Amino acid sequence: MKIVKVSLLARTYPIYIGDDAFNCFSHLEVLKKASNLVIITNHTVQDLYLERVVQLVQPLSRPFIVVVLPDGEVYKNAEQLDTIHTSMLQAHCDRKAVIIALGGGVIGDIAGYAAASYMRGIAFIQVPTTLLAQVDSSVGGKTAINHPLGKNMIGAFYQPQAVLADSSVLSTLPPREISAGLAEIIKYGCMADVAFFDWLADNISGLKILDAETIAYAVQRSCELKASIVAKDEIESSNINIRALLNFGHTFGHAFEAVLGYGVWLHGEAVAYGMVCAAMLSYELGFLCLSDVNRIVNLLAAANLPVNWPNGVSQNAVIAAMKIDKKAEQGVLKFIILDCIGQAHIRDVDETVLFIVMNKLQT
Amino acid sequence: MKIVKVSLLARTYPIYIGDDAFNCFSHLEVLKKASNLVIITNHTVQDLYLERVVQLVQPLSRPFIVVVLPDGEVYKNAEQLDTIHTSMLQAHCDRKAVIIALGGGVIGDIAGYAAASYMRGIAFIQVPTTLLAQVDSSVGGKTAINHPLGKNMIGAFYQPQAVLADSSVLSTLPPREISAGLAEIIKYGCMADVAFFDWLADNISGLKILDAETIAYAVQRSCELKASIVAKDEIESSNINIRALLNFGHTFGHAFEAVLGYGVWLHGEAVAYGMVCAAMLSYELGFLCLSDVNRIVNLLAAANLPVNWPNGVSQNAVIAAMKIDKKAEQGVLKFIILDCIGQAHIRDVDETVLFIVMNKLQT
Repeated sequence: MKIVKVSLLARTYPIYIGDDAFNCFSHLEVLKKASNLVIITNHTVQDLYLERVVQLVQPLSRPFIVVVLPDGEVYKNAEQLDTIHTSMLQAHCDRKAVIIALGGGVIGDIAGYAAASYMRGIAFIQVPTTLLAQVDSSVGGKTAINHPLGKNMIGAFYQPQAVLADSSVLSTLPPREISAGLAEIIKYGCMADVAFFDWLADNISGLKILDAETIAYAVQRSCELKASIVAKDEIESSNINIRALLNFGHTFGHAFEAVLGYGVWLHGEAVAYGMVCAAMLSYELGFLCLSDVNRIVNLLAAANLPVNWPNGVSQNAVIAAMKIDKKAEQGVLKFIILDCIGQAHIRDVDETVLFIVMNKLQT
Repeated sequence: MKIVKVSLLARTYPIYIGDDAFNCFSHLEVLKKASNLVIITNHTVQDLYLERVVQLVQPLSRPFIVVVLPDGEVYKNAEQLDTIHTSMLQAHCDRKAVIIALGGGVIGDIAGYAAASYMRGIAFIQVPTTLLAQVDSSVGGKTAINHPLGKNMIGAFYQPQAVLADSSVLSTLPPREISAGLAEIIKYGCMADVAFFDWLADNISGLKILDAETIAYAVQRSCELKASIVAKDEIESSNINIRALLNFGHTFGHAFEAVLGYGVWLHGEAVAYGMVCAAMLSYELGFLCLSDVNRIVNLLAAANLPVNWPNGVSQNAVIAAMKIDKKAEQGVLKFIILDCIGQAHIRDVDETVLFIVMNKLQT
């Protein structure tokens, strides 16, 4: 088992990675001291892993409840958040109750926010069951629900006590979900570590078939890279906006998700094509060289991710969606631009340039 | 103008106290740098002070919106929280928007929580317009909304950037509201500062008629006492539970509020009678002497606060309400017990003792 430590000013927590990470359930101090355990999951994950998790926590002899939400991003909303809180109040959960978020990014986000807001904050454990969640939402403490007017608009920065990223649960993922996770892994290489990008290009076949050693290293290195960035800027407040660099591909990505309708593309797929757009934008602005753009596009394509403009999406709709994104400031659109593979900066970009890039991408 | 500094690990902010505190609107850095201002208030305060505040912020030349909520504790709920967030999203408020909470404790709590949860946290300014809010919710960063199953169940610890506690706005308060504020002020004397308690007993007449110098000192000293306690334990996580001492009178108080129905007693009135109960409990347990119990009851009575068991409330209903309170841990009831006036500790108390005390109070 590998352990990545996420070092934060207010709180430091470990991520346990490997096909034996679930062994931690029986000896995490926070679970031993809990008054109640609240396992939050969805219907899909319930069928696959709930019984196993229940067996693992039963030796702790803590009373527990299970809250099963419907599966999907559209249910990451205020109504389901209230379902969680109501279940907890009905079970008389107090401030020593601990939430176990068992599922992908949606479950991690809503269960994390439920923990952040229940009685002004209780402890929670992330148990990410998708590759994307293991490398993305398990580091950084971003919790949220969606609002009808925008994604992740309501939430908190709130850190888990521990993350159990067990590789063995990835085996039940559909290939599209694995690719979506690889998109976020490739992102770390693009914006922070060229050596890792090269390693990913060399090992893409092993990653796609979830070779145990290969995938564990990819998860570990991704978490390390994200952790080192988050540690410098826990709540996105630094003047130089270090943490924002993690949003490489996301301004475009979120816009495509919103315009296509949530669920048409997986988040990772939208980010993948967002990275294609951001790479082309970096080239257009005179930073990234064309051969590096191609290396990125080729690696994404090798990971079975979308690298072409989606049918039926208008450029104007993409721009409009970007403007309501919470990364926009006073209507100015900001993008993460690559200087080269492994190094990025943030920059305001004029709409004119965006239309030039989108025209090139659509032809 | 007096300034009390609230020193917290994560964040330090000033409370401006006096009849000229509103002058700060024009030169607070956080307001000058805001992208949008969001003034949140209720119908009652709107009629009294909105125009004045709008005139004070207009020289800042920031775009602003006003969100007016219905007046009352029953509206401190998820629906009104969504009203705030929706208004902000419709006005394209970004993460540099700043919320101005103009009103009493209800507005401070819901507007503060709206700030804590909008795009994972934006800045806010507290402008408390009741005496209770000036001495209680303006220090400590407790924000929350109510849930149908319990008061303040959903919320966050989230600090404002500054508090403007202007004494001149207190002049429009009904006498009951002034007394309710005095209850919380008397609480600080009881649990932390016997010299302040003595000063309050000597100056109760001036306080009731809102003598400018007298009330400003009472607000200042209350904020200082609360700030020094909160600074030691920002999120109620210290093992010795220092911050919990601020809850003197509140376990009983919250129970009476819940059993009577919110709004029958003002929060301060419920806390006042809660202090009578807690003082009697402290005596019953062998800590507080009877003459000190009487001094507390007499001061509360002099402040026109309830000191008798309310009609129609059953002892069992009070116990049941206490058990769902979030201060309870695994059903064990905890109380703040006075050793003497000015010194307190926290203690688990058995139900049997509570019934003995309640029997004495009811006769």
